[in-house]
Amino acid sequence: MNLEKLFKPKSMAVVGISKRNPLSPGRIILVKNEFELDVGVYGIHPEAGELEGIELHARLDELPEIPDVLVIAVGADDTLKYIQDCVDLNIPSSIIIGGGFAEIGGKGIVRQKKLEKIAFDNDIAVLGPNCIGVYAPPLIDTIFLPTERLTRPPRGSVALISQSGGVLIDQFFVKFNERNIGVSTAVSIGNRAVIDETILLKYFSKIDPDTSNIAFYLEGFKDHKAREFLQLAKESEDTIITYFGGITDYGKIATQSHTASLGSNLKILTSALKQHYIIHPHSERELLTYLKVYDILSQRKKPFGENIIVFGNVAILSVSGGHGVLCSDMLKKYGLTLVRFSEQEKIEMLNLLNPVAREISSVNNPIDLTGSVLDTDIENIMRYLSGIERIECILLLLLPYPPNISFQIGRRIANIITNKKKPVITFLPYVAKYSLIIESLEIANIPVFHSIKEAVQAASALKLRSKITSLKKDTTYWEDY
Amino acid sequence: MNLEKLFKPKSMAVVGISKRNPLSPGRIILVKNEFELDVGVYGIHPEAGELEGIELHARLDELPEIPDVLVIAVGADDTLKYIQDCVDLNIPSSIIIGGGFAEIGGKGIVRQKKLEKIAFDNDIAVLGPNCIGVYAPPLIDTIFLPTERLTRPPRGSVALISQSGGVLIDQFFVKFNERNIGVSTAVSIGNRAVIDETILLKYFSKIDPDTSNIAFYLEGFKDHKAREFLQLAKESEDTIITYFGGITDYGKIATQSHTASLGSNLKILTSALKQHYIIHPHSERELLTYLKVYDILSQRKKPFGENIIVFGNVAILSVSGGHGVLCSDMLKKYGLTLVRFSEQEKIEMLNLLNPVAREISSVNNPIDLTGSVLDTDIENIMRYLSGIERIECILLLLLPYPPNISFQIGRRIANIITNKKKPVITFLPYVAKYSLIIESLEIANIPVFHSIKEAVQAASALKLRSKITSLKKDTTYWEDY
Repeated sequence: MNLEKLFKPKSMAVVGISKRNPLSPGRIILVKNEFELDVGVYGIHPEAGELEGIELHARLDELPEIPDVLVIAVGADDTLKYIQDCVDLNIPSSIIIGGGFAEIGGKGIVRQKKLEKIAFDNDIAVLGPNCIGVYAPPLIDTIFLPTERLTRPPRGSVALISQSGGVLIDQFFVKFNERNIGVSTAVSIGNRAVIDETILLKYFSKIDPDTSNIAFYLEGFKDHKAREFLQLAKESEDTIITYFGGITDYGKIATQSHTASLGSNLKILTSALKQHYIIHPHSERELLTYLKVYDILSQRKKPFGENIIVFGNVAILSVSGGHGVLCSDMLKKYGLTLVRFSEQEKIEMLNLLNPVAREISSVNNPIDLTGSVLDTDIENIMRYLSGIERIECILLLLLPYPPNISFQIGRRIANIITNKKKPVITFLPYVAKYSLIIESLEIANIPVFHSIKEAVQAASALKLRSKITSLKKDTTYWEDY
Repeated sequence: MNLEKLFKPKSMAVVGISKRNPLSPGRIILVKNEFELDVGVYGIHPEAGELEGIELHARLDELPEIPDVLVIAVGADDTLKYIQDCVDLNIPSSIIIGGGFAEIGGKGIVRQKKLEKIAFDNDIAVLGPNCIGVYAPPLIDTIFLPTERLTRPPRGSVALISQSGGVLIDQFFVKFNERNIGVSTAVSIGNRAVIDETILLKYFSKIDPDTSNIAFYLEGFKDHKAREFLQLAKESEDTIITYFGGITDYGKIATQSHTASLGSNLKILTSALKQHYIIHPHSERELLTYLKVYDILSQRKKPFGENIIVFGNVAILSVSGGHGVLCSDMLKKYGLTLVRFSEQEKIEMLNLLNPVAREISSVNNPIDLTGSVLDTDIENIMRYLSGIERIECILLLLLPYPPNISFQIGRRIANIITNKKKPVITFLPYVAKYSLIIESLEIANIPVFHSIKEAVQAASALKLRSKITSLKKDTTYWEDY
């Protein structure tokens, strides 16, 4: 089954285009790919003619070339005919947008069985049915909703696979964009009649060169495929993260009306995931935090250096005592430890500060430089902490309110970190006027979070990945994970 | 002790103004109050003259009137002299910005004892020392940081008291603004030598007409005052919420360097708060969610009607199955229950839908109207659910991606809710282009949240307040809270 044709197509054809309704799914897909994406697009309509300047072809077998992928946006029975066309015309892959298959029960189940047989017998890579398909920038976007209503994430290292199209475009796209997390390919698997999470894990892990992190939103594994999925994950060099919906009693009932798959027992599931080095965050926010960190670690420019090992020993640097307190409160839950400074180190740090801040700063851990801080104080302390080997990660709570902190501070810190290669996680309030500072850091691949909790989660993400990487290499650094 | 003079002053004087440094705290306070706020401002400088067009007076006893409040931004020893001036000149209240008191130990403790004695003996309402003071719009703002660096929250019903100035201006101001939560008065209590959380609780609960909700960030109660605080809270008609920092071992160490007060034992604390009907959220986000809901319930226009009682029975309405699943998963944790629909109700709901959506929608709870939804489908179902008495709150997960949802949808829903008086909590993605829909709802006092979790927390906030209100009135609806 050739998934490269599906995710990196040179050409696509679309069936199910309405000449009357500009908001029909097939027409939206035709127009957005023609106008916005790099794939070559052929529109199929029995009357041929043209639509919004795009030439339409009457039949699939009249196209000047065999398309890599056929997007099918017609009723369920016609869908099967078009899948047969794929076989007859050697079209290697197809995306089925419409429903009317297993999710409606009865005859829908029969239809889906037929679909599966044709696809597997003829090795056609079929995605769906009942899905929004693929977003693989800059090539293809089969999301049948108007682009201007959507928020697209930037390009990056994360392959994103979702059993719910709504969750994909809302919970992930919107929040990836907010957090600047990059996507290689996003896939809505719908009923996953043919292509399922396991096939996708294999492709993204072993074949796709653009993906280093693979994230799944699932409402349960496909029958009999869990074992293969887990084994593939354990052997993968990529970081695998799963998030499950439908895991409570209410959620399970909701899942049944939605995708007709049952969520697994959470405890057994969690334990199996852990044993196979799959990261399983507690909340959606934690998922997003992890992905942001791992996407950054996958960039070519590595501000923290190669092969980061973080056992969990951190230093907190703040200009507000209360922020230091709130941050400290969260460390234990996330398996992090405050490094203790020696008296000598404290004296050396105080000597690096301006005289006013020196009087009132606290150089315990957390360090509180107070509102009397200057840019140079923060720079000096960051440089000093970067030189202490037993500090594995600095949590920098950077409040830009003190009057003497300049808007250069982000750039100054980025330069120090890039030079020193010390892992640093920053917290900065999410306020439009501070975007210059935020961007200074993010441009240099230093992650910025907008809540203290997420910053702490991000530090724990470094620890978690260090653990998993070591365990996959059979090193014995770590106690049983 | 007259706190009205402190929080609603007609005039203030400022000492500690630098003619050379435009960023000195005293000067920032002088200029921002003169240029941006309604209070009358007198600047005191031994050389008199003028500064940025503001006349300066050489001595406090030369002012044309006795100011309501004296803001002191000088060194610790001089501070005590100025407090004595308050006594001699009958200035009823003072805000001490500077440090050098109990937080530095040793002679600082002696100074603070002196300060306390003068203030209590002469009934001067002293705030601080070591604080950023008061923000009470539109009258006074003694935050000694440049206004253009800060994000001010809107005006509203919440009195906000914080033991950390940094937490007040960052964790609260920024996030109140993001969430449109309104503040009556914000107070940084610093070392709380004289005015402490208990005195403030009494004032905001019994005297201030603008406050209906009182929120505290504390790192522990002031010695020997916990009992009085708890008793006042239990008797209060306002909603009281506390959030404690410094509650873990690491946090406690951080607290000691910061405000030198010890956090209490969390379990004992939690139990005591509960017994006195004080809301004690698990996280900062939960705190913010609760405050947003309670601020809205305190508005004069009440879209949900008076005396809302929510036992926790909810309906979920979505256009994405996955969102329904994720929302359902969170209900149990927050003590909420999905109402079951009868077969008759399901048929009636289906009959309200457009033919395409009718085919593929699920009208179990959660309801999934799918991407084929029209505005009128959402309106019809909202009106229908509003008429079902056993539904106490509707969780509306409103994704604006389906092509036929118009930007009028927010207004349409607002009109229905305002008419039907059914509690509704909405989730909408936080994307700039959807602000028209978001604002349509918020203008009508219908709360919008930008994560499913916060929407669920908000529904639980209604239940929690229903419980506490009933318990305070000694009704027997509720099992032991």
